[in-house]
Amino acid sequence: MKQGVFITFEGNDGAGKTTVCLKIKEELEKRGYPVLYTREPGGSKIAEQIRDILLDTENKGMDFKTEALLYAASRRQHLVEKVIPALKENKIVLCDRFIDSSLAYQGYAREIGMEEVFSINRFAIEDYMPEKTIFLSVSMETGQKRMNLRGDKNRLDLEKESFHKKVREGYDQLISEYKDRICVIDAEYDIDTVFLNALDEVMKVILKYE
Amino acid sequence: MKQGVFITFEGNDGAGKTTVCLKIKEELEKRGYPVLYTREPGGSKIAEQIRDILLDTENKGMDFKTEALLYAASRRQHLVEKVIPALKENKIVLCDRFIDSSLAYQGYAREIGMEEVFSINRFAIEDYMPEKTIFLSVSMETGQKRMNLRGDKNRLDLEKESFHKKVREGYDQLISEYKDRICVIDAEYDIDTVFLNALDEVMKVILKYE
Repeated sequence: MKQGVFITFEGNDGAGKTTVCLKIKEELEKRGYPVLYTREPGGSKIAEQIRDILLDTENKGMDFKTEALLYAASRRQHLVEKVIPALKENKIVLCDRFIDSSLAYQGYAREIGMEEVFSINRFAIEDYMPEKTIFLSVSMETGQKRMNLRGDKNRLDLEKESFHKKVREGYDQLISEYKDRICVIDAEYDIDTVFLNALDEVMKVILKYE
Repeated sequence: MKQGVFITFEGNDGAGKTTVCLKIKEELEKRGYPVLYTREPGGSKIAEQIRDILLDTENKGMDFKTEALLYAASRRQHLVEKVIPALKENKIVLCDRFIDSSLAYQGYAREIGMEEVFSINRFAIEDYMPEKTIFLSVSMETGQKRMNLRGDKNRLDLEKESFHKKVREGYDQLISEYKDRICVIDAEYDIDTVFLNALDEVMKVILKYE
């Protein structure tokens, strides 16, 4: 690779982001590409300490703006410690959730406002917007079913169904606003089909930089 | 009191903020005013968890923007849990450090930029700017001497002298920019004189709302 490429994966809980991401990483490595798969907090000790506060089921009194600032702080530290160094080594960085999650979850679903949440995230990420974002689209039912299979629930997973519906509405707004950046993949199909369709999109970006 | 009044205290480390604040609180209560003395994180469990990350001497790799976002998050939670409820009960809130600390420390001394740090703090505090800010002015030598008397040192106290000088430069910029809000008190004097001068300024604000 002549330069690093930053690709993010987004979608509601249970869309299959992690599974698809990891399969793409495996395939790209088979093809000889240098890849970093990561997700916030991604092994950054400081970002993990922040994440512990966010996911603590005891912290029910957390203000929504506090939550948005903590996500931005965790994102910043993970970006500086993990993503930027990998991009400087000309790696393909596959990041499981990034700025769009905050815009959809905190900005839209929590009703802080997308613009406001965007402003603190711009502070956090500066010019490191993803080159391409793969959005895995599933129905509420499918997402819920896949989440139930996982078992372990954290503070955010405990949100009501209406919240997850609003998250999707937020994503839909982003999809229509950032048509060039966000690519929607139908994730209702079996995992191998979803993986191949997502891989196609990832390869289109990579081939631009070879 | 007909309405709450929000007053903050600022200054370099070792300026005597806490001592002066507590004496003013005592005096105001003697005069029959309802007072909340507080400082971030101020007993908010979530804000304290955030502060633990900030003051952890092991976290040397913390990015300056992460630091600024964490201070804003801690500020937000403390404001929502402690300051706003007290103002709604028409109390006089004396807050030991607030937004100006972030502007001077992170914005100016860390060189993130005052404007940028102001933007994330506006997100955090919305319209809750202090009515009046008492700035306790001491020389570097006096500040250092008073800090040494305290002993216990956290991550920020370990900063070099040049850093504390830059913090003061940042404060000086704020003082000239917010002449109406920030009142400078010479804190080189003995504590009783400093206390009486600061009390005068606090009373001027209170008498406006009686």
